Amino acid sequence: MTLGAAAILLCGLAAGQKEQKPAELQLTNDGKMLRPANYREWVWLSSGIGMSYQPGASASEHPVFDNVFASPSAYRVFAATGKWPSGTVLVLEIRASQSNASINKSGHFQGDLEGIEVHVKDDRIPGGWGFYGFGKDKSSATLIPKTASCYSCHEQHGAVDTTFVQFYPTLLEVARAKNVLRANY
Amino acid sequence: MTLGAAAILLCGLAAGQKEQKPAELQLTNDGKMLRPANYREWVWLSSGIGMSYQPGASASEHPVFDNVFASPSAYRVFAATGKWPSGTVLVLEIRASQSNASINKSGHFQGDLEGIEVHVKDDRIPGGWGFYGFGKDKSSATLIPKTASCYSCHEQHGAVDTTFVQFYPTLLEVARAKNVLRANY
Repeated sequence: MTLGAAAILLCGLAAGQKEQKPAELQLTNDGKMLRPANYREWVWLSSGIGMSYQPGASASEHPVFDNVFASPSAYRVFAATGKWPSGTVLVLEIRASQSNASINKSGHFQGDLEGIEVHVKDDRIPGGWGFYGFGKDKSSATLIPKTASCYSCHEQHGAVDTTFVQFYPTLLEVARAKNVLRANY
Repeated sequence: MTLGAAAILLCGLAAGQKEQKPAELQLTNDGKMLRPANYREWVWLSSGIGMSYQPGASASEHPVFDNVFASPSAYRVFAATGKWPSGTVLVLEIRASQSNASINKSGHFQGDLEGIEVHVKDDRIPGGWGFYGFGKDKSSATLIPKTASCYSCHEQHGAVDTTFVQFYPTLLEVARAKNVLRANY
C-alpha cells in the first residue's frame, strides 16, 4: 500500500467518522495527522534512557530519554480491559539528558526536546496501527510507510497488540492480570 | 514545632477547610496524610535516573529512576501563573531500573516500585510545605519533622518556591516566562 492510498483511505473516512474519534486523534482531510498539542498532560506510561535494541550498542556519553504518553481515553480502556481501543494515540517523546547542573552531581535529568513520534490505532489505517514522525516542531505528519522497520519490530516484539507494554511497568501489571501478554515477547 | 503540634494543627483546620482542598490532598483527623491513590494518572513532570546531589558519588550498576507527578489542579495553576497554589501535591516515585530484558540491549527502562515520597503545600503546615514518606506500600504517613535535610535542601536549592523546577523541563519554560525563578538555584 502506498502513502497516497493511505492518504485517500484516511481522507475518505475522516469526514464520516470524525465525531466518533477521540479529540486526541486529529486527522486532516488530506490524510495528515496534526501534532498532538497537549500530550504532556496525557497519562505518562514510563521513561527510559539510552535504550537500544541493537546487540553490542555502546553506552552514550549523552544518552537520550524516551518518554511515552497515552491519550487519556485509550489509557482508561487499557486499564480496564488490557486492550487498546480504536483511536488510541501513543506519543514517544525524545529529550536530551543533562548531568552536571544546579546541585546535581551524577546521573541524568531531562533537558531539551529532540522530537516526538506517534503510534496510532485506527481502523482506517491498513493493519490497524500507524506511525507518524513529527520531529521537534512539525505541525503535521503523513503516515510512515508500512515497509518501515518500526512496524515489523513492533509486530514481532510488542508484548500487547504491537505495543511495548513490557517497558511500561504499571500497564505490564494490567496485561498480566488480563492475560493479554503475547508469548515470547 | 513538634510532630504532635503539627498533628493538632492539621487536625484542627482539616475539619473546617476540608471542602476547599483538592481531592488529591487527603489529610486525616489525626494529622496523617493518606497515600495518593491514583497519582500515576496525574500530570507527570519529568524523570531522572541515578541523580545525586553529593559530589563524588559514583555511578551505580543499578541506578534508580525518579518520577515526579503533580496533582492536576496544582499543575493547571502553575502552568498559568508559575506559582504553586495551596493544596499542591507533588509525588516523587522511585523505581528500579532494568537493562537486559525483552529486546532491550543497553540503557535502562523502569521496573518495580521502590517507594514514594510526597511534597505538599498547605497553609496548615508550618513553613507552608511538608514532606511525607510512604515507602512502597504504607497507606498513610505523618509529616516528616521540619529538621530533616529535605526541607533545608529544597529551601536552599529549589528553583521555584522550594521545588526543583530546574529538573522539570516544561515547567522550567513556564517559570522563565513568568519570571519566577529564584536567583542562583
